[in-house]
Amino acid sequence: MELLSENRAFGGRHCRYRHRSTVNNCDMTFAVYLPPFATADNPVPVLYWLSGLTCTDENFMQKAGAMKIAAELGMAIVAPDTSPRGEGVPDDPEGAYDMGQGAGFYVNATQSPWQDHYQMYDYVTSELPALVEAELPVTGERAISGHSMGGHGALVIGLRNPNRYVSVSAFSPVANPTDCPWGQKAFSHYLGDDKSSWQAYDAAALLAEKTHYVPLLVEQGRADQFLTEQLKPKALVNAAQKSDTPLTLNMHEGYDHSYFFITSFIDEHLQFHASHLGLI
Amino acid sequence: MELLSENRAFGGRHCRYRHRSTVNNCDMTFAVYLPPFATADNPVPVLYWLSGLTCTDENFMQKAGAMKIAAELGMAIVAPDTSPRGEGVPDDPEGAYDMGQGAGFYVNATQSPWQDHYQMYDYVTSELPALVEAELPVTGERAISGHSMGGHGALVIGLRNPNRYVSVSAFSPVANPTDCPWGQKAFSHYLGDDKSSWQAYDAAALLAEKTHYVPLLVEQGRADQFLTEQLKPKALVNAAQKSDTPLTLNMHEGYDHSYFFITSFIDEHLQFHASHLGLI
Repeated sequence: MELLSENRAFGGRHCRYRHRSTVNNCDMTFAVYLPPFATADNPVPVLYWLSGLTCTDENFMQKAGAMKIAAELGMAIVAPDTSPRGEGVPDDPEGAYDMGQGAGFYVNATQSPWQDHYQMYDYVTSELPALVEAELPVTGERAISGHSMGGHGALVIGLRNPNRYVSVSAFSPVANPTDCPWGQKAFSHYLGDDKSSWQAYDAAALLAEKTHYVPLLVEQGRADQFLTEQLKPKALVNAAQKSDTPLTLNMHEGYDHSYFFITSFIDEHLQFHASHLGLI
Repeated sequence: MELLSENRAFGGRHCRYRHRSTVNNCDMTFAVYLPPFATADNPVPVLYWLSGLTCTDENFMQKAGAMKIAAELGMAIVAPDTSPRGEGVPDDPEGAYDMGQGAGFYVNATQSPWQDHYQMYDYVTSELPALVEAELPVTGERAISGHSMGGHGALVIGLRNPNRYVSVSAFSPVANPTDCPWGQKAFSHYLGDDKSSWQAYDAAALLAEKTHYVPLLVEQGRADQFLTEQLKPKALVNAAQKSDTPLTLNMHEGYDHSYFFITSFIDEHLQFHASHLGLI
């Protein structure tokens, strides 16, 4: 694990690391915020943040305004990149923003040419936490959140791994990717035409399947330009009702899809996770 | 004044506007954060934020994490661009980051080819506030702050116009530009070789001249990579002692020149200005 940069922030540290990923078969970069007083003798729990299309490990740390409350709560935040990257890693041949590098959709690809590198589900769920917990002053207590494509990732990973995450939240998630253009495009390339393989990566489908007991919080702006075509939060509500799963969905008048929305409500999400991580 | 974009944030509005600048002889873009409940019947005071080299009107609004407390305090923030821009506007012929577009240094240029457009001192001090106060729900009460080149701008403009700004602050300012490479390069091009004309744009020189009564707050990181060669906060301290001017300079162990430093202490600066603007 190579330290790329370090900045002091709110008494803690923002660090970017590069490491070799076995599952993605390339170098990966991630960012971490460590609150003040996080040491080997005083390890802290971690919120994993999954970013949206076109993002890297940097966007959340620079734009969310989350560090102040993370410092106060004593919570680390780990922000992985949104896909494998590098010269040997396939990308969309037309440079589309919603496929390939910057758009891994947090799945394990099974189709050519993606399957040798695009294993973001395993990377986020297993490889990265194992590395972080071995190398940094953190506990094995985890929560997960994300935005848009990353909100989809957080919901899917959280719902499928209730023993690994104490709480799950999302901003503006792609809630029902099997039924929207972004998801259908990505899944058909990464997972192939057999739509039965898509279900394991669809939050609404997973939520409808059975009652889930992990605490779930979703934030959504009503002025989000992707609300109707891509995000479909109503599918989450319907699925939660079907499976009798408790779900809090907050709809916000006037808010759009941008980081100005995320920053407006990030404190509440960190407090939500902190309460389940036993920090407050 | 043309509205380019609008985002809701913390119950208020982040807007970007484009307008024709008479003094800069080009179109200029600026950003404004208006807190909740700012209306023509309930106008709010304004903090002007001047950004550093390479920035535009966007960096502060996206990265400083200032909106939450601005919303709570009932303070607007206006962030101008850092120079004139556009096709007819001269730029550094070698594309240097520290001269030309993105690097106006908040002076009124007197030298060719700069003088027809680079009138950032007048733009920030007069033209922009007049426009903002005519078009937006704000009062004529103003404070000013900034970072690096913008910290220099805030100090110079605040010290020279004590009747226009109730309080002045800076993060990592270029405190003594007549005695550092950034300032010497910019001033020799914008103002010419007669160094007597440079004094009016040097915060340390202005501060040494006479006792100033405007409240002054400066934040500086000790791990700032530009501290010794470019920023020279000691020159401010010496000047303030010479003129018997009260100055608060906070030095912070471990903090660098980045936005991670700004965001760590921006709340204190907004509270400082709010106290002088009568908001708290």
